Formats: sequence, C-alpha cells, structure tokens
Amino acid sequence: MNDPRPTVGVVGAGQLARMCAQAAIALDVELRVLAARPDDSAAIVVPLAEIGDPADPATLQRFAACCDVLTLDHELVDREALTALAAAGRVVRPSADALRFAQDKAFQRRAFRHAGLPVPAFIVTDRVDAARAFAEDHDWPLVCKRPRGGYDGRGVWHVADPTALTAAWGDASAGGSPVLVEQGVNLEREIAVLIARRPDGSHAAAPVIETIQRDGMLRELVVPAQVPTAVERQARDLAVRVADLVDVVGVCAIELFWTGTQVLINEIATRPHNSGHWTIDGASTSQFENHLRAVLDLPLGSMRATQPAVCSVNVVGGHDGVPPRTRLPDALAIPDVHVHLYGKSTRPGRKLGHVTATADDVATARHRARAAAAVLAGSD
Amino acid sequence: MNDPRPTVGVVGAGQLARMCAQAAIALDVELRVLAARPDDSAAIVVPLAEIGDPADPATLQRFAACCDVLTLDHELVDREALTALAAAGRVVRPSADALRFAQDKAFQRRAFRHAGLPVPAFIVTDRVDAARAFAEDHDWPLVCKRPRGGYDGRGVWHVADPTALTAAWGDASAGGSPVLVEQGVNLEREIAVLIARRPDGSHAAAPVIETIQRDGMLRELVVPAQVPTAVERQARDLAVRVADLVDVVGVCAIELFWTGTQVLINEIATRPHNSGHWTIDGASTSQFENHLRAVLDLPLGSMRATQPAVCSVNVVGGHDGVPPRTRLPDALAIPDVHVHLYGKSTRPGRKLGHVTATADDVATARHRARAAAAVLAGSD
Repeated sequence: MNDPRPTVGVVGAGQLARMCAQAAIALDVELRVLAARPDDSAAIVVPLAEIGDPADPATLQRFAACCDVLTLDHELVDREALTALAAAGRVVRPSADALRFAQDKAFQRRAFRHAGLPVPAFIVTDRVDAARAFAEDHDWPLVCKRPRGGYDGRGVWHVADPTALTAAWGDASAGGSPVLVEQGVNLEREIAVLIARRPDGSHAAAPVIETIQRDGMLRELVVPAQVPTAVERQARDLAVRVADLVDVVGVCAIELFWTGTQVLINEIATRPHNSGHWTIDGASTSQFENHLRAVLDLPLGSMRATQPAVCSVNVVGGHDGVPPRTRLPDALAIPDVHVHLYGKSTRPGRKLGHVTATADDVATARHRARAAAAVLAGSD
Repeated sequence: MNDPRPTVGVVGAGQLARMCAQAAIALDVELRVLAARPDDSAAIVVPLAEIGDPADPATLQRFAACCDVLTLDHELVDREALTALAAAGRVVRPSADALRFAQDKAFQRRAFRHAGLPVPAFIVTDRVDAARAFAEDHDWPLVCKRPRGGYDGRGVWHVADPTALTAAWGDASAGGSPVLVEQGVNLEREIAVLIARRPDGSHAAAPVIETIQRDGMLRELVVPAQVPTAVERQARDLAVRVADLVDVVGVCAIELFWTGTQVLINEIATRPHNSGHWTIDGASTSQFENHLRAVLDLPLGSMRATQPAVCSVNVVGGHDGVPPRTRLPDALAIPDVHVHLYGKSTRPGRKLGHVTATADDVATARHRARAAAAVLAGSD
C-alpha cells in the first residue's frame, strides 16, 4: 500500500493501552502493544501484541522498529534505551527527558521547586535523623515516598510521629536509597488537571476534577470539582506551566492539593491517567483519543465536559474472585452508567475497571457510579 | 478459567462489526468476526477474525461453535443455515425469522400491511403491464425495488413515467423475479427510529432522526429531526410496533417517510444501522453497545441524545484514491467533530467513514460535520 496506516506502539499493555486501542479504531491508526504477558488487558483486544520485556533494550528496539511512534502505558521503561532509540531516529513520545519527571519523584519535586512552582515543603535524604529534624521544623505528620517505582499507594508511608517514622524508615529507604520526605498537607480537596500536548507545545486542557483517594489509590472522581473558580483557574494555569516545563508530548496528568488557601502540585504522570477516564463518556474528546492525536502530531480535540455532572468510580477486586463481567446484569440496570472493564483476572485490591455515571447533578452521578461499581466488585 | 468471557460472533466484518468491537472492549466481551477477506474493516482490528464464506453452511457452523451468541453485520446470510443452527441449540440473534423481514422487502411490506401498519401503496409483480396499470391507478412516479439484495440505492429505480418504467424493467426484474412496485411518496422528510430490543421484548428507543439521502445512500443525518412532536411520537410508536412484529433481538432501524400528513414505514434493517452511528458521540449509550447488550440479554442503556444538536455525515470515497486518514490533520482542526474511519481501501462511492459533529444548534453541527466529511473525502 502506498500510504499505510500510521502505527503507534505502546510499551505496556494495561488498561491505558486497552482504552487507547478503542480510540485507535476510530482514527484508523494501527495500535501495537509490547505486553509482558499474553493475557494482559490490552494484549487480548488488539491483533498485534508482542510479548516481551520492555526492560530489555533489544526487545524495545525490535518493537520500536515496527512503529511510527513509540509511546508508553507505564513508567517502567529504561530511559537510556529510549534516548538511544530517539538518537537512532525513532519517534518517542513522551521523550526520555519528560519521562524522568514521572519516574523520579525527587527529581520532579526539585525541578518544580527550582522553577518556582508551588509544592509541599520537602527534603530528599537517606538519613532518618534528617527526616526527624525536618518534621520538627515543619510539624508532623510527614509523608515519606520512595522516589521511584511507587504507584497506587505503594512506596508511600504516612507517618504521624517519630515512632511511626522509625517503623517506616527501613522499608522507605530499603537498599539505602534516599527518601522524598514531605510535610503532610492539610487537605481541603485533591484535584487534578489533564493536559494533552503536541510537539509544538499547543495543548488542550480538561476541566479541573476532584479525586477521592483511599489506601493511596484513586477511587472516585467528580466533575466539576467542588472548588472556587479562582482555584480552578490557578490549577489549570499551574498544569499548563508543568506541561511546558516537562515538555511532555501526549497526555499528562497533574495531581494537585488544595489546602483551602493554596494550590500545591503533588505529582504528575506523563501518560493517560485514571483521573482522565471520565473523558470517554463525559467529555467532548477522550484522553485516549487526544493522547493518540498528540503523539501523532494531529490537532487536539476539546476535553470540555459535555454533561452537567460526571462521577467515575474504580472497580476494585474483592475477595470472592468473581470477575465483574458476571455481574454486568445488575450494574447495567442502573441508569446512565458506563461500564469499562479491563479484562483482568480478579485479585483483591486490583483495579479491574471503572464506571462513569452522568447526571444533572453531582449527587446523582455519584450515587449511580458508586452503586454500579459496588455491584461489579461484589461489595454492595 | 472457570468463568470465561462471553463470545459474540459477528457474521460479516464491515464497519458495523468494527464499531461493535470498540463497544465489546468496554464490556469485556470477546468479539469474533467471520470475514470475507483478511483486510475487511473489522477483521483488521480484532484478534479473532476467521476468514470464510458465510454462505457455506459448514463454515457458518464451525464459526458458530466458537461463539456464545451469533449475530449479523449484514443480511447476506442463508436463513436455512441459521434455522439449523438455532435448532441445534445455538443462540442466533436476530433469528432467521426476524432476518426474513430485512432480506425480503416484498415479504416485509406485505407483513406490515397485513398487520395494519401504514406503508406506501404497492404491488409485487413480475409483469410490466401490471406496474403500468398500478401507476395509472395511483399516479406517477413509481419506485421499483428488487425485493432482495439491494442496499445503498442499488436495486432501486425511481421511474417518472411509462418510458422510464420500460427502460428500468429489464434490470429490475432480471431473471424474471417479481418486483416491489410502490407509489413514489411526496416526501416532506425522511426520518428513522432505532430500537434496541431484548429477548423478552423490553426495548430502548433512540430519538427520531432525520436523514438526507443522495443516490439512494444515507449521506447525512440530524438529531433532533425537524418534525412536529406529534410526528415524532407517531414514528416512535410505529417503530416499537414494527420491532415487536419482527420480534427482533438486537438493534433494528426503522426508516420512515413523513409526507406532511402521514407517517409511512419505508423499510427496516435488523442490525445496527448507518442512521444510528451518531449515538456513539451524541447519545448516552451507542447503538453498538446496545446491540451487544441486547443479544447478550443484558439491560439496555438509554439512547437519549446528550447534546442539543448532532449531525453525522458519511465520508464517501472520491476519485483520487487518497485514504481519508491522510487528511485527518485538516478534519480534526474543526471543533467538536468526531471522526470514525473504517479502515477500508478507497474506491469512488464507497462509505469510508463518518463524521459526527455536536453543537448547540443544528446549523452549526451540520456545518462542522459537512466540512470535516468533505475534507476527509477530498471534496472540499
């Protein structure tokens, strides 16, 4: 064929790649995935799934050679290998430099502070007594984070006092690595902004959303966020500054704290993100379509909300091992809920899907989404 | 696995199966297609595409044996083979009996008239003099239709006078088969209603939409239809009566004429239909998701419009042979358009995709959708 369809290769085959696959169909884009296992969430829905370890540079190189653009489903990719691919002329979006922000929370936090962006007070240290001294200066509680590899609450310790710090420090600093120690912020709300950004820096921003975390995992989000207009504006301005600083290409999620008086940047992800799943059913353009459009350097779509109120709730695996798809009859009986299952085997605590409900008001949307997610998880 | 995902097998792998594949991902349903060719629209986006001729009963039987439910992307399926599958315990939705209405326009028209449903005046005859006598009773023009195998304007002749009738009759009655001869209706509007229906007869109906045909092919549709409320109500009531009479399971599209004084049933399709593509971007639940939900006997979603105005325009292949995907940059620059490409090779007159635009008013939606479709077709 003279003009073959563009191929986007996704490193990783989780639910983000899976939902990108839906968007790729509409745009006539070929989506390939590099999956760790043949039964990965995205590997079972696309014709072109390669099974391999993305940490192996030869595997990554072979995979990239079949793709016009390489992009990422997760952060667990070797940046040197990505740099080498880019140097060899492959198109890697986001770049290895942008990915560093997401991979290394200590680097991210320092870079943001250096750029004058508002972040919680923090130090990076490998010494527990330095952490204790920081707490005495800034007050308890502290949050200790492993700079690399943590997600969904793993690698994060909330410590209320010196005893808890001593107890957590061994795990947090395992292998003698430095720990990101930050002041526990007194939260009014956790909010997030999603930005899709093209190589020339043009971008589309989604409305500010409000997230509710539990055990460090995003459980629920609501659009619009219940915050003053001035806070919304400030959050969006900060998010755009972050995206520009990171020079991200693709979708970037910026998670923020609103303390009641200040908006602070918590952390970012340089890929489609749980806080943007609602855009499939509640925004003019979904984050997954915009991610593809951004990495292919196509014009971006508006991500404005198309419904008065949207609520998304994650479906998290319970203890009975029953797959949520067997509970679809009860979940789909609830009006105006949109069910998204990830095709994963059921394990307690595992994200197996999400439900987005739309309504005229937040209370109704929340009620419906929670009810459907509880049904699917078997916890109603 | 103890509880495998349900498998829906689609006979045919055109754009309808392709858009069903997107919906299947969210519901964790495995979609298999029986494709005529490996590069069929849906065959290139699912992991499980079987290549074979659905007219061959052994092929159909082998395919059905891998599926929990068998459904259809087109009408060109042998009804006896479907009946045999159902008798052998396979779940076939819609049934062979329902499919007969869509396969045979003469049967359909007679059944509707017999049930007291309003249809244009017609006869079924293999004699040109009978057609001429019918015209003299009812006035010219006539529409002559081959009862079987026509689509997108093929197999349909608009004849204005006795000379045109004589010229068309040879083709229309090729092989000596009877022709459905109907009175040409003086149209005010062409409208359509989409119904999704479960085995127990419960259903969800989409709002009445207005279609604009050109060369017998649906080119453009608008939601809401520009017709009086009483006409809308009448159209929806008729559509439900049709769906019940046909006893369809799955999605059924009912195309109607509004003459300014009467609502008449034109014809139906017992599958997802071009007149329902707008539901992906403009309704709470898409026709493709509801088709899967209906054939799997799951609760249906509302298909109410979520936007004040929606317009869909088909992207039809032009003469330059350029695939529409190469023109995405200009099309996606138009605000609030949703592009759906079918991955087909370009041929003049072939449906290659559609564009749905949403807006606050019909004029804006129409302007955007037409502009984007023209760009993609290379005809702007």
